[in-house]
Amino acid sequence: MNGIIAAISTPPGKGGVALIRISGEGTAELLDRVFRPRSGRPMSSYPPRHAVWGDIIEGERPIDDGIATFFSAPASYTGEDMAEITCHGGALISAKVLGAVYAAGATPAEAGEFTRRAFLSGKLTLTDAESVSLLLEAKTDAQLAVSACAAREKMRERTGHISEMLLSLLSSLYVSIDYPDEDLGELTSDQILAILEQAKAETEALAATYRAGHAVAEGIPAVLCGRPNVGKSSVYNCLAGDDVAIVTDTAGTTRDVLERTVSVEGVTLRLMDTAGLRKTDEQVEQIGIDRARAAMDKAELILAVFDGSAPLGEEDLAWLEELKPRKHQTLAIVNKSDRETAVDVERLKDAARAVCFCTAKEGDVSSLRRSIASLYLDEGFVPGESATVISARQKASLDRALTHMEAATLAFCSGLAQDAASTDIEMALSALGELDGRQVSEAIVGEIFSRFCVGK
Amino acid sequence: MNGIIAAISTPPGKGGVALIRISGEGTAELLDRVFRPRSGRPMSSYPPRHAVWGDIIEGERPIDDGIATFFSAPASYTGEDMAEITCHGGALISAKVLGAVYAAGATPAEAGEFTRRAFLSGKLTLTDAESVSLLLEAKTDAQLAVSACAAREKMRERTGHISEMLLSLLSSLYVSIDYPDEDLGELTSDQILAILEQAKAETEALAATYRAGHAVAEGIPAVLCGRPNVGKSSVYNCLAGDDVAIVTDTAGTTRDVLERTVSVEGVTLRLMDTAGLRKTDEQVEQIGIDRARAAMDKAELILAVFDGSAPLGEEDLAWLEELKPRKHQTLAIVNKSDRETAVDVERLKDAARAVCFCTAKEGDVSSLRRSIASLYLDEGFVPGESATVISARQKASLDRALTHMEAATLAFCSGLAQDAASTDIEMALSALGELDGRQVSEAIVGEIFSRFCVGK
Repeated sequence: MNGIIAAISTPPGKGGVALIRISGEGTAELLDRVFRPRSGRPMSSYPPRHAVWGDIIEGERPIDDGIATFFSAPASYTGEDMAEITCHGGALISAKVLGAVYAAGATPAEAGEFTRRAFLSGKLTLTDAESVSLLLEAKTDAQLAVSACAAREKMRERTGHISEMLLSLLSSLYVSIDYPDEDLGELTSDQILAILEQAKAETEALAATYRAGHAVAEGIPAVLCGRPNVGKSSVYNCLAGDDVAIVTDTAGTTRDVLERTVSVEGVTLRLMDTAGLRKTDEQVEQIGIDRARAAMDKAELILAVFDGSAPLGEEDLAWLEELKPRKHQTLAIVNKSDRETAVDVERLKDAARAVCFCTAKEGDVSSLRRSIASLYLDEGFVPGESATVISARQKASLDRALTHMEAATLAFCSGLAQDAASTDIEMALSALGELDGRQVSEAIVGEIFSRFCVGK
Repeated sequence: MNGIIAAISTPPGKGGVALIRISGEGTAELLDRVFRPRSGRPMSSYPPRHAVWGDIIEGERPIDDGIATFFSAPASYTGEDMAEITCHGGALISAKVLGAVYAAGATPAEAGEFTRRAFLSGKLTLTDAESVSLLLEAKTDAQLAVSACAAREKMRERTGHISEMLLSLLSSLYVSIDYPDEDLGELTSDQILAILEQAKAETEALAATYRAGHAVAEGIPAVLCGRPNVGKSSVYNCLAGDDVAIVTDTAGTTRDVLERTVSVEGVTLRLMDTAGLRKTDEQVEQIGIDRARAAMDKAELILAVFDGSAPLGEEDLAWLEELKPRKHQTLAIVNKSDRETAVDVERLKDAARAVCFCTAKEGDVSSLRRSIASLYLDEGFVPGESATVISARQKASLDRALTHMEAATLAFCSGLAQDAASTDIEMALSALGELDGRQVSEAIVGEIFSRFCVGK
């Protein structure tokens, strides 16, 4: 039995109202102790889900008035008996009301504990929980779309379909293991192989969505670099300009490294700032280069900006040599492309995955935007239109499932005993169980819910 | 007819859930457009106050799932048709949901507009609204107590009782004006005077609670000053130590003046910091003295700290001369009173309203605390135990009512025509109407509600 937990579920600070959530067996009785409807009737005399106005009681004294609603298990967010109290939203008064709820028998909820209980009650899957976590943190429209309710349902449908196929195989194989000589109308070998191939293809297709999911949900650590006066900040402003939902400045590990979140055609770029590259004196110059190098080591994408109207100097050439080992992750940006091209484009091609031309000062970075999008998103990708794998954990579970399906095919084709194939299919199902949380370790569950705030 | 307004009523920022409030005629229809219950039935098919799970719709697309509750007029906070939608508490997602509500026909609510509509619908009085404003801002337990629901009711009862007395006088006077020669069993002159005296006494008593109400609710701007090494910060720490609910630092007009809220036996001290008094070099010393003088000009209470173990020096004597014109508002604090007294206490008495002895280093400032409390609170005052006037506006209305009642007594006693007395009583009633908002100018209403946050 779970004890009763409580927390303020609304953001901290001052607002018009605050919402306090209570969940666990005995919530109805607790509510009768802490909440006294103005009608004079006890709260428990009202039907579930009825919003009732009354006083919040501490000891025998009313400390605030508000609205309470009781939700009866299992028809609640957590799947347990639950209550919500909406009280005045001052910082002190809402803390007092929460204190009264504690005094009436609740204990403080841990971070993510309501959603964790919802998961344990089977109200949502682990992939759902990861989506909700992203939804709460979302800074871009694309992040909202891939974590929205509709996308969560599509994910459940697709993984559910793969699991069903594997289960049908398993039951057929069990029958032929148990009754090898009887024809029970089960699947033929060809049918088994065909279903296995389809399950593999669907799993592979789902796993492949992580390329986009990673770019949208987790975001691409990127660095914009180049020599002074090539137009880095114009490029930055153009990228941040129209498609960005929220630009946030996060203090980095060192005081001078800032990270800015920018959305480019749906791709979330976590742009590390290398302000240090500005040359103010010789020592600073060296620090700047060291810093740019450190940022490049952490980046998945390097946006290297060059002045298209100037030939490459000695410093540029040295810089290109540094980029070459990182060619796969580098986009060379030829800025000022409205002027006559003096830069050696072939040399840039040599050191970068692609070269794009832009005139940032005129606001034209469309070619750069398309280049970035094409690195991570399939043509015509619409965030949230289909199921998207949004975390490395999900991708790893799918990969593991795929490996076991391949082993099953091999075992089946090579004429090994059918129980070898069925063991592999069981393991593939178990990997899918990790994905949605039906079979998952406490450690992984703990890790995922610790990312939530208290009150969720 | 009021249009439909909407706002996020929970604090800004990231939380588990956000609550969006909608109010105005047509809210039910708007809710049907923006919210689609998972049951498949329209929201309007549910009874009022029923919490329904469903999808929030933008255009035709669900953007989030949440809980909606409809409140039918007049049984709602505003007294109008109202709805509350609880959605996921991310900053971006809650803004999106609010955007969908706007798109469905609502306009952004102004600061305090929900409570203003509640006031205009007669759901709460203007004194209630001021209490709610204090409740949301409250930093101390005493502030919560004087603004709590129970205290609001006591205020309504007491002003209601005074108004009733005046109305009974008025109807009696009208009858005797209209039918001067008939005995209609109305009040005798003695009875009229007795009722008038009682109404005056009750109004006076209520107005007198502003001494405490001001100290608790509005807070006393105070300054702690004294020469270096007399123990100012020990005194400060002792005051802030055990009774303080929340200590907040508010940036003042100049960078170096901080204001700290400290609760002393229920009295809210808004302590201005005079860090500038620390002597680091000669110029800073002068700036410090200027600053302390400026703080004293703004303060209602000066806490002047002296070292009890040292005789008064030339600087101290000069300082005492400065305090003398502010004697009424000055408490002289003799610190280090565990050592032999070397300070000239008589001279301190000369420059201060009271002298208290303390040993801040040992944590003993009880005499100081009692002295501060006795300046503003009656013996045995318990915050919220009875109605308390919490704003200068309320006090001014009561004073005006009192003046008119006194004029009525005079008119009645001096045998003037009874309609002179009744006119005065009408004006007293009108002043009470300003207090609770039944008769009040748009400007005052606007001023009060502008202090609220958006969403309240």
